[in-house]
Formats: sequence, C-alpha cells, structure tokens
Amino acid sequence: MLEAAQVPYVDVGQLPEAEGGGIAGIRSFLGSPEVRGAGIYAPPILTGDGLIIAQTPNICLFLAPRLGLVPPGEEAFYQAHQLNLTILDVVNEVHNTHHPLGVTLYYHEQQAESQRAAATFLRDRLPRFLRYFEGLLTHSGDWLLGDTFSYVDLSLFQLMRGLDYAFPHALNVLKPEIPLIQKVCKRVGDRPAIAAYLASDRCIPFNSHGVFRHYPELDPAPPTQTQKLMGY
Amino acid sequence: MLEAAQVPYVDVGQLPEAEGGGIAGIRSFLGSPEVRGAGIYAPPILTGDGLIIAQTPNICLFLAPRLGLVPPGEEAFYQAHQLNLTILDVVNEVHNTHHPLGVTLYYHEQQAESQRAAATFLRDRLPRFLRYFEGLLTHSGDWLLGDTFSYVDLSLFQLMRGLDYAFPHALNVLKPEIPLIQKVCKRVGDRPAIAAYLASDRCIPFNSHGVFRHYPELDPAPPTQTQKLMGY
Repeated sequence: MLEAAQVPYVDVGQLPEAEGGGIAGIRSFLGSPEVRGAGIYAPPILTGDGLIIAQTPNICLFLAPRLGLVPPGEEAFYQAHQLNLTILDVVNEVHNTHHPLGVTLYYHEQQAESQRAAATFLRDRLPRFLRYFEGLLTHSGDWLLGDTFSYVDLSLFQLMRGLDYAFPHALNVLKPEIPLIQKVCKRVGDRPAIAAYLASDRCIPFNSHGVFRHYPELDPAPPTQTQKLMGY
Repeated sequence: MLEAAQVPYVDVGQLPEAEGGGIAGIRSFLGSPEVRGAGIYAPPILTGDGLIIAQTPNICLFLAPRLGLVPPGEEAFYQAHQLNLTILDVVNEVHNTHHPLGVTLYYHEQQAESQRAAATFLRDRLPRFLRYFEGLLTHSGDWLLGDTFSYVDLSLFQLMRGLDYAFPHALNVLKPEIPLIQKVCKRVGDRPAIAAYLASDRCIPFNSHGVFRHYPELDPAPPTQTQKLMGY
C-alpha cells in the first residue's frame, strides 16, 4: 500500500542490524515500553502518525483512507475491509496447506498431512474462493470496489502472485475460469509504482519461509492427455 | 455485543422457517440481489443502518462505536480491533484443532491428525496467547483497554468460555497463570445483560457443530500424581 501510494517508509526488518534493523532491531523494538503499552502480539507492526498498529488487516484499514486507497464513505470503508478479511482468510488457508498440524512444527514433520491438506484446499476451497471473487468482478467493474482502484485490489493481486508461485499447476487449471481476476492483476501489476516496486530489491522474492511456499509435492502436475487415456 | 448493549435484534437463523428464518431463510437472503451486491461471501451477516456487513471482526468494528462498546477516539478504535483480531486468530487455531486437514472433511476423517494438532496447539500456542492477554491486563486495568469495558472484553470472555468447554483439562492446568483473565471473565459474566443472555434460549449452547467442540480425545486428562510417580 505504501509503495502503491508512493509514500516513503522504512522496512526495519530489511535494514542492516548496524543501523538498528534486522531481527535484532525488531526484537529490541518489540521489547520497548511503547510497544508493550500498545499491546502488540507480533509483527507486522506499523508506526506512524503517533500510533503503533499491528495485525495486517488492521494496518490496511488504518492506511487506506490516509493513502487514498479506499473510496470515501463508511459503506466503502467496511465493504473493503470485509473483502480484505476474506482474502486474508484464503491466505490463512494457504498457510495451513504446509502447516496443517501447527506453526510450531517443521514442514518435514507434517509433510504427509500437508499433502492431504493441500489436496483438499485445491479441490474444495480455492476454486470456490476464486469463483466468488470472479463473480464480484462481473458486477463491479474494473476493480473489486467498482470504478475505483483500492487496496483490496492490491490484496487480490498479492494473493494471486502467491498462488501462482505456490501452486502453478493448480492455478493453471483454474485460470480459464477467472479472466476478470487476471485482468485486475494485470492492471495492478502495470501500475508504474507497483511495477517499479516489483523490480526493486525492496520486494522480497517468494521463498520457503513465508506464507506462500512452493513444495512440488503439494502441487502435483495434472495428468496428461495420454495418462488420462490410459486411465491414470 | 447487541445483548451487552441491550439493543433489540433478530437472529434470522433462529427464527422458524415459517417466519422466514432457519436455513431456508438464510439461503434465500444470501441469494437476494442486495446481498449479492454487497459482496458477501458467507455468514455471519449483519444488516442495519442501511448497510449489509459480513466477516465477524468487521461486524464488531462496525457495531462498537454505535453501541458504545469502544472508548472514543481513533487510537482505541484501532487498538481494540487489533486485540479482537488476535482473539479471533486464537479462535481460528481452535477450529484447526478439529479440522487440521480442511473444513470440507469430516472430523472422523482427520481424527488422528486432530490429536496431533490439538496437542501442538495446547502445548505451544494456547499458553503463549493466554500469557500475552494476562500480560496486557497487568498493565491495563480492570478491562483489556484500561478502565472502560469494551467489546474486546466480550470477545475474550467468549473465547475463554469456549476453551473451558472444549479443553477443560488443558485450561485447568493453565488457570493458575491467568488470574486477571479470569477476573475479567467474571466481571463480564456478572453484567446483568450478559447474565440474562446466558440464561436465555437466545444463547446457543456449545455443541459439536461450532468452532468450540469438546472431543475428549483432544483434551486428555493430565497424569495423576500416582501416574507421575510411576513414570507415566
């Protein structure tokens, strides 16, 4: 959101430790009285305008009107938040595909369960969520909230980027059903501020530590035409 | 929140179908053009003041200032939401203890995995969350946001009721560590509006269809003193 609005910010986690950043910087910030007073449980944390705010959907909610990333008025404020929470529900379900038994166990301790969880998610849940967003776009216009670009489009864009990274096979099967979602993502990615961000080293590439992970065993290739004919 | 503020409401799901309620009533409402226009994904849904709002944290956010259930001002608005989102994260993790592989599979299809997921949650996650809320209360006062009762206290109260139902053994072990949480819950439960609600048939008892479920195999009794001495 800050990149889309071209507002300067500091990503403390990306700063060198010598400059007060990195894991040491975040730990020290988390231990400070002001953060304890603000009742923070965990990052991400935004500080600005005299407030200290945690929880991703809360941070988006706080930033959106300030950055002009939500249409004015109460109805749009709550509708955008509702859509954002649903997108974040999908993100949580994605996380669950590689940590179904718990975040405190390693992936290799729950790999067999992850395969069942991922198969269930890709079969039963993801198509339903994507059809829902596609359906919204058939009514709304160029963007999720109608004619106005908003932070919810950014969330959808990031979700689709992550899904493309984590589950390329599964997403390829679904893509013919979601042309409007793909158009929104194209429009978001073509915005100069977003394109510049994605090409910069401020944009952390997807990896095996984040929410979206690519484990080939969780995204098996669909059977080929020949395999199908042979009854696989 | 509506009960706490003693504001009249209709719970459509609890109305008889003959009066437009029940599952049929909800299905018909979900299919109506106004709900489709509002971009609703799933219940719970609140209608009122000309808005149609979904997503539990969003509904709380919307109601809180209207019902006087959050202190005035932007800081309290966002801090309350942040705490509520963290409480709802715990609720999600509770749900995951009985549906680790996915919500579209039955419990009996994932019972062994549920036992591992519940053990991990009760060992690694729940104590951490409860200590966090207990820690907040050592700084804040009688309520999570200080001297003023707010909707976040209601959320904590409901979380603790649910945990008490689902995991009585595990919670009993943790209770000595969380005296302040227990005091908040006592204060909430003693409020006349809440006590009247809990005693009424509007309050749906915990059961095996909701988020909080009591499956004894997910909450084993701790070893007795004798068992401990015998090396169990």
